[in-house]
Amino acid sequence: MNIAVAQSGGPTCAINASLLGVFRHATKYEEIGVVYGAVNGIEGLIYNQLVNLNEVIASDDDVELIRQTPSTVLGSCRFKLPDSEKDDSVYKIIVETLKAHDVGAFIYIGGNDSMDTVVKLDKYFKANNIDIKVVGVPKTIDNDLPVTDHTPGFGSAAKYVATTLQEIVRDSSVYSVESVTLVEIMGRDTGWLTASSAVLRANGLPAPHLIYLPENPFSVAKFLDDVRVAMKKYYAVVVAISEGVELDPDEVGQTEQSGKEDVFGHKYLAGVAKTLEKVVSRELKCKVRSIELNVMQRCSSHLSSKRDITEAERIGESAVKAVLEGKSGVMMYFKRISSNPYNVRIESVDATEVANRVKYFPREWIAENGHDVTEKAIEYCLPLIQGEQNFRIKNGIPQHYILPCALPRERAKK
Amino acid sequence: MNIAVAQSGGPTCAINASLLGVFRHATKYEEIGVVYGAVNGIEGLIYNQLVNLNEVIASDDDVELIRQTPSTVLGSCRFKLPDSEKDDSVYKIIVETLKAHDVGAFIYIGGNDSMDTVVKLDKYFKANNIDIKVVGVPKTIDNDLPVTDHTPGFGSAAKYVATTLQEIVRDSSVYSVESVTLVEIMGRDTGWLTASSAVLRANGLPAPHLIYLPENPFSVAKFLDDVRVAMKKYYAVVVAISEGVELDPDEVGQTEQSGKEDVFGHKYLAGVAKTLEKVVSRELKCKVRSIELNVMQRCSSHLSSKRDITEAERIGESAVKAVLEGKSGVMMYFKRISSNPYNVRIESVDATEVANRVKYFPREWIAENGHDVTEKAIEYCLPLIQGEQNFRIKNGIPQHYILPCALPRERAKK
Repeated sequence: MNIAVAQSGGPTCAINASLLGVFRHATKYEEIGVVYGAVNGIEGLIYNQLVNLNEVIASDDDVELIRQTPSTVLGSCRFKLPDSEKDDSVYKIIVETLKAHDVGAFIYIGGNDSMDTVVKLDKYFKANNIDIKVVGVPKTIDNDLPVTDHTPGFGSAAKYVATTLQEIVRDSSVYSVESVTLVEIMGRDTGWLTASSAVLRANGLPAPHLIYLPENPFSVAKFLDDVRVAMKKYYAVVVAISEGVELDPDEVGQTEQSGKEDVFGHKYLAGVAKTLEKVVSRELKCKVRSIELNVMQRCSSHLSSKRDITEAERIGESAVKAVLEGKSGVMMYFKRISSNPYNVRIESVDATEVANRVKYFPREWIAENGHDVTEKAIEYCLPLIQGEQNFRIKNGIPQHYILPCALPRERAKK
Repeated sequence: MNIAVAQSGGPTCAINASLLGVFRHATKYEEIGVVYGAVNGIEGLIYNQLVNLNEVIASDDDVELIRQTPSTVLGSCRFKLPDSEKDDSVYKIIVETLKAHDVGAFIYIGGNDSMDTVVKLDKYFKANNIDIKVVGVPKTIDNDLPVTDHTPGFGSAAKYVATTLQEIVRDSSVYSVESVTLVEIMGRDTGWLTASSAVLRANGLPAPHLIYLPENPFSVAKFLDDVRVAMKKYYAVVVAISEGVELDPDEVGQTEQSGKEDVFGHKYLAGVAKTLEKVVSRELKCKVRSIELNVMQRCSSHLSSKRDITEAERIGESAVKAVLEGKSGVMMYFKRISSNPYNVRIESVDATEVANRVKYFPREWIAENGHDVTEKAIEYCLPLIQGEQNFRIKNGIPQHYILPCALPRERAKK
């Protein structure tokens, strides 16, 4: 049989390593023929855009370059399959594509939405006696998937966030004036990535001085008090705040509207850090700056965690093993045995346990003062950011792998 | 005699290497006793805050850590000396501090404002027969100092910008939808740093697809046309634009006011990328994102250029040599002999040639289409981003050096 693999959802630095894990492990087995890469996630199966990876990953050089390339070499999508009981037309197209390529297993690397696809495909195949296995491989910088100890991609993002915050702390503290620097960090509704910035404590740095996660109710009044207290001690205060922290419009004032409107025509607030920048400027009248770490937190592969990349490859391999053991409708996951020494096992879980669900940052890991995390959180994050990648550099810049089939042009014709 | 050294203006990744160059070279000469570091630039001489560097830089470890620490270990300032002919009170205080520490030479590492300080101090010392030499060492990520081929700090910032833009290009191109990503890059009124992103062409990458510098008049209508054309070819268009590009408020609409006001009460426009994000969203109705590389461009020492750091140290050394040769009122600078093979000489120039002046990006290096730079610009930038630093890592994060005299607290008491 042949197998197909695809990547979905938001990019990370580790998702290509998982693709490599699938590809390289599959080529070790005689019973597996070609490994196809579906372009743009599940859309590649719908639009019949499959790439023969055995042809395009031709050398050890290709392997090295893919490992150090961020984002998804196969492209991605945000596509939600309909309920097959209501409308199975798209399922029929997918089956047609898979059968035409003699595919016996589909491995999907993605987040909680992608696990919804794993569940739905598996259910449809089983209900219709189609022998195609479906296995999910987790990935997201948000670290918000249930069951798994952590998600591939999170460790590299955390390493970026911590390293960059340390540099911002140095940058912000040069002048002899009081200042506030607000750093907005991704993670959607969860605080994992913001919390990871606290690993700087392990190196003796008190920063970031204030940490706010969406799992804790946010009060602007308390925030301003926290800043006032921190400023007495640290002068140049650096705040790490999750993009998902909800501000009460009554507390921040109507002037903070970004002018943008959502699809329903509702005006919404600017980013949380930008909004609080204006509040600090108005209320504390000190120097203030807001910084969005933006997409750099998910694509700065030059700063990826070696452990994260290694684990991402291993969990990709494990999906191939699961397929050969006859498993389907499962997601592979990390079970942490111990933090020190660090030890994880890879196991599988029914994908329904993960699909469309969110794992929040534990309330008990938020410090009582509401603006910090506990030692447990640091102990959890530290092992995940360990190790540095060796890079192939050309002209002073890391080299990236670009799929030779010129995707964007092809997509345009679609 | 003893010497004093200070750092001034905006932080860079290389300014601490120049400090090291001064310190380490000075310790080689018997005629030089103590090297004092003035805290927060010239303010350290005014408030008598001097650190004995021979005591605080105690080991090879300290040297290694300082070399990899971004920003200014001695702190910085933005202080403009008054004209001594109108008011010499602060000059008298500075002389008092320097004499009390038996300082025979003051080396000031900074940008064009700091060279103004070099000129004024030198003029005052000479007019009053005070035998204290004053020598400037250039630094700025903006690369906007006249005379010198380039400024220490620029190469590292350029390496960060190019590396990060390449990653953003990968991140932006994963979905099968048309999109525009606007990346705002520092450089004040000059386009050097934005132009440096074009080094990606040397690695075969067509991105950034559009490059806009402040040296060229900007038209929103032309910009939208450029984006439309680029989108047909590249689908996910990435734009590098200088923070200093001036937008015509009539072209972008009154709604783009940020709500902030400057010290004179004038409302001003939001950042250029954020403003154009709204324009693109309104006019092209496609997916659009703006990214500010923010302070990360000047403090991401984890990505510094080895050549930049090495040169910054060398030019620091050269200032000590100049002092011992009896020079004063000069700035050290790089004279490029050739780009390939790369070869520079360090010479000195009268600081009046540099103070308060700006070196703009050459008009003839801007492509005729107005949204690109020429091969000459790439040839200029490429040598400056070469080489990677080896880092001391602890717990997965580069270690930084922090001056043991706990500056912020001391400053607070000032």
